Amino acid sequence: MAVKRSPLAPRRFPALPEIAGLQLATAAGGIKYKERPDVCLMVLDSGSTVAGVLTRSKTASAPVEWCRAQLPHGRARAIIVNSGNANAFTGKSGETSVRRVVETVAGSLGCRPQDVLAASTGVIGQPLPTERIIKTVKGLARKVRPGEWKSAAQAIMTTDTYPKGAARQAEIGGTMVTLAGIAKGSGMIAPDMGTMLAFAFTDARLPAELLQALLREAADKTFNSITVDGDTSTSDTLLFGATGKARHPRVSDPRDPRLADFRLALEDLLRDLAQQVVRDGEGASKFITINVSGAASRGAARRIGLSIGNSPLVKTAIAGEDANWGRIVMAVGKSGERADRDRLSISIGGVRVAEQGEVVPGYDETPVALHMKGSTIEIDVDVGIGRGKATVWTCDLTHGYISINADYRS
Amino acid sequence: MAVKRSPLAPRRFPALPEIAGLQLATAAGGIKYKERPDVCLMVLDSGSTVAGVLTRSKTASAPVEWCRAQLPHGRARAIIVNSGNANAFTGKSGETSVRRVVETVAGSLGCRPQDVLAASTGVIGQPLPTERIIKTVKGLARKVRPGEWKSAAQAIMTTDTYPKGAARQAEIGGTMVTLAGIAKGSGMIAPDMGTMLAFAFTDARLPAELLQALLREAADKTFNSITVDGDTSTSDTLLFGATGKARHPRVSDPRDPRLADFRLALEDLLRDLAQQVVRDGEGASKFITINVSGAASRGAARRIGLSIGNSPLVKTAIAGEDANWGRIVMAVGKSGERADRDRLSISIGGVRVAEQGEVVPGYDETPVALHMKGSTIEIDVDVGIGRGKATVWTCDLTHGYISINADYRS
Repeated sequence: MAVKRSPLAPRRFPALPEIAGLQLATAAGGIKYKERPDVCLMVLDSGSTVAGVLTRSKTASAPVEWCRAQLPHGRARAIIVNSGNANAFTGKSGETSVRRVVETVAGSLGCRPQDVLAASTGVIGQPLPTERIIKTVKGLARKVRPGEWKSAAQAIMTTDTYPKGAARQAEIGGTMVTLAGIAKGSGMIAPDMGTMLAFAFTDARLPAELLQALLREAADKTFNSITVDGDTSTSDTLLFGATGKARHPRVSDPRDPRLADFRLALEDLLRDLAQQVVRDGEGASKFITINVSGAASRGAARRIGLSIGNSPLVKTAIAGEDANWGRIVMAVGKSGERADRDRLSISIGGVRVAEQGEVVPGYDETPVALHMKGSTIEIDVDVGIGRGKATVWTCDLTHGYISINADYRS
Repeated sequence: MAVKRSPLAPRRFPALPEIAGLQLATAAGGIKYKERPDVCLMVLDSGSTVAGVLTRSKTASAPVEWCRAQLPHGRARAIIVNSGNANAFTGKSGETSVRRVVETVAGSLGCRPQDVLAASTGVIGQPLPTERIIKTVKGLARKVRPGEWKSAAQAIMTTDTYPKGAARQAEIGGTMVTLAGIAKGSGMIAPDMGTMLAFAFTDARLPAELLQALLREAADKTFNSITVDGDTSTSDTLLFGATGKARHPRVSDPRDPRLADFRLALEDLLRDLAQQVVRDGEGASKFITINVSGAASRGAARRIGLSIGNSPLVKTAIAGEDANWGRIVMAVGKSGERADRDRLSISIGGVRVAEQGEVVPGYDETPVALHMKGSTIEIDVDVGIGRGKATVWTCDLTHGYISINADYRS
């Protein structure tokens, strides 16, 4: 399959700062891809805390189940990731593979296997080439270095056309802390989960429970508000590690006002990564922002936004640069959420096209048609029921998606 | 847009019998299409009963809302249908249009407007050309004739590539009765509703409440078990009229054993029509049957089947003739229904590919790959939890779907 960089890709991979207490290394294990790194080890100094958001799929992968079992401890010394094979639907042998890989990492770091988290992404249902990964992993612990972000972001890619990374700074009680992360994903991307894989880190010193609360809140507004194709991966994993190297005042209550800036920075970081995932949506030619207001609740607004963002008819219309707002009406109607047909209003590119249940009088499609030709599409929907608001990001559905997915395995 | 007949189409439109007490007529009203019939009038003799299943969309069309208001009476003398314009999201003027059209029909038949049901299908959000339809409708009542099935099926088409019809016979208490119907729909087809438009009739003599119970039951197993793209129309309407001309014993209890044959025939008729809708799915190249068993309930089985049938990744894999069963695992997992990864089994084309949570030992893809090259794909999934069973029908997702929907309006 020809790998053409997404037309919506950022110009370049951003310069990401080192996070004190975090080191990274990658290697080419030959799991599926030839001559490219496909294994990544992330090592955290002892004393680091960790939080995570995992797929709610009932057929979750073996590494997801491993993480689900370990995350309550709130501690991690390492995260081991491979691309090319999801180790999902691989039965007991898949579980054994995870255990053997994390034991190998633990052995080389001198920590407990429970302190090693794991993630895999790629084909479902094929046995993990465990021996090959173990052999690759063995040398990695000696190779870790701070700031190896770009090669890490590359090693976790599958059908991604570019590596994804972002960083932010925030202050906690007058002390600056750093946040940085990487993500991957371009198909099988759907709400209610993290994305396929995303790893974020900070040097802030935050207890695991607090970290989990902050991550869950930020994930709902970011990774859980994007969709490419409505298909939910068996492997969705978002992990957030905190090395505690920054010397800020101790905080432990999620409502502590000194966390306000950090909270914003974390949400901003995850939104950036999540949008990069959407911009690499398989076959995407348009980046679409859907703002829903006037819904019964924030949750209702998000579900309406996702109903629009998941609609094949809305997505193909946008691919065709057709301002077919009737399909947006349809998608609002099928969401199952409360809506009042006669109060619904829709704007595209800032131009009101429909209000009070019908097309605006004297509607001139010219500016809207022009907006549709751009690569960034903005849709505003007011449902006219309440005060719930949410924003959802998605991409269009093109021939590229079909081409990529009709011959992914071959 | 070039209209190429679906490769999954039946050889020809079936010969459908007349239904005593039912007459049909069509005309070209020039609503959207040139030189083809786009208005259809169906006239039932007085004393006929009627039942219906309508879209649950919150942005339902004006004719759907009209039907919702009239159906509780259980009586109908006529159904007036147009294609090319859905009269959806057209505000108060859309309601006025329906009222004026049904009043015109009622006037020409000498019945009450409440006895005239209406359905529209086509573009959403454009005002109905009411005057043109009224003018067309005026002459229609004089033109109705028994057995005009094929032109009726043609008049209700939009992006359909062939007209759809079916008929069955059944006996009630030793007397033969006839059932026949037509349907349309090829995109914006999703579960939990009727299809876009389907009209079935019988000469049986059945009270409206009984008719409604039988229709609801059959619709759940047929029209509510198909999906093309997961998008739910604002116009979905399934109406079933009974003229009462057949001289069978009186029945009124849905549990009456004398209804057994009729019940089977109705389900069979609707399944035939629903499958014809799937076979005309936009861009479809494969007809897919998904049998789910071992689920917690029948409803759970259907939701799992629809999760598979709606998955863009499953549908594109099938378009690519790729037996990528890992995506079926994913779709089961995302359905939200109870499933046990380690008990899940999957067969494709009758060949077991995965069981007990992993690929079958020594799996040989050859016969499965051959099956994928055919135009009829069979998928069996056993969830391993309970005894709930359901069958869902869908089609693949191809470049054709994108081409049709990226330039539908232009």
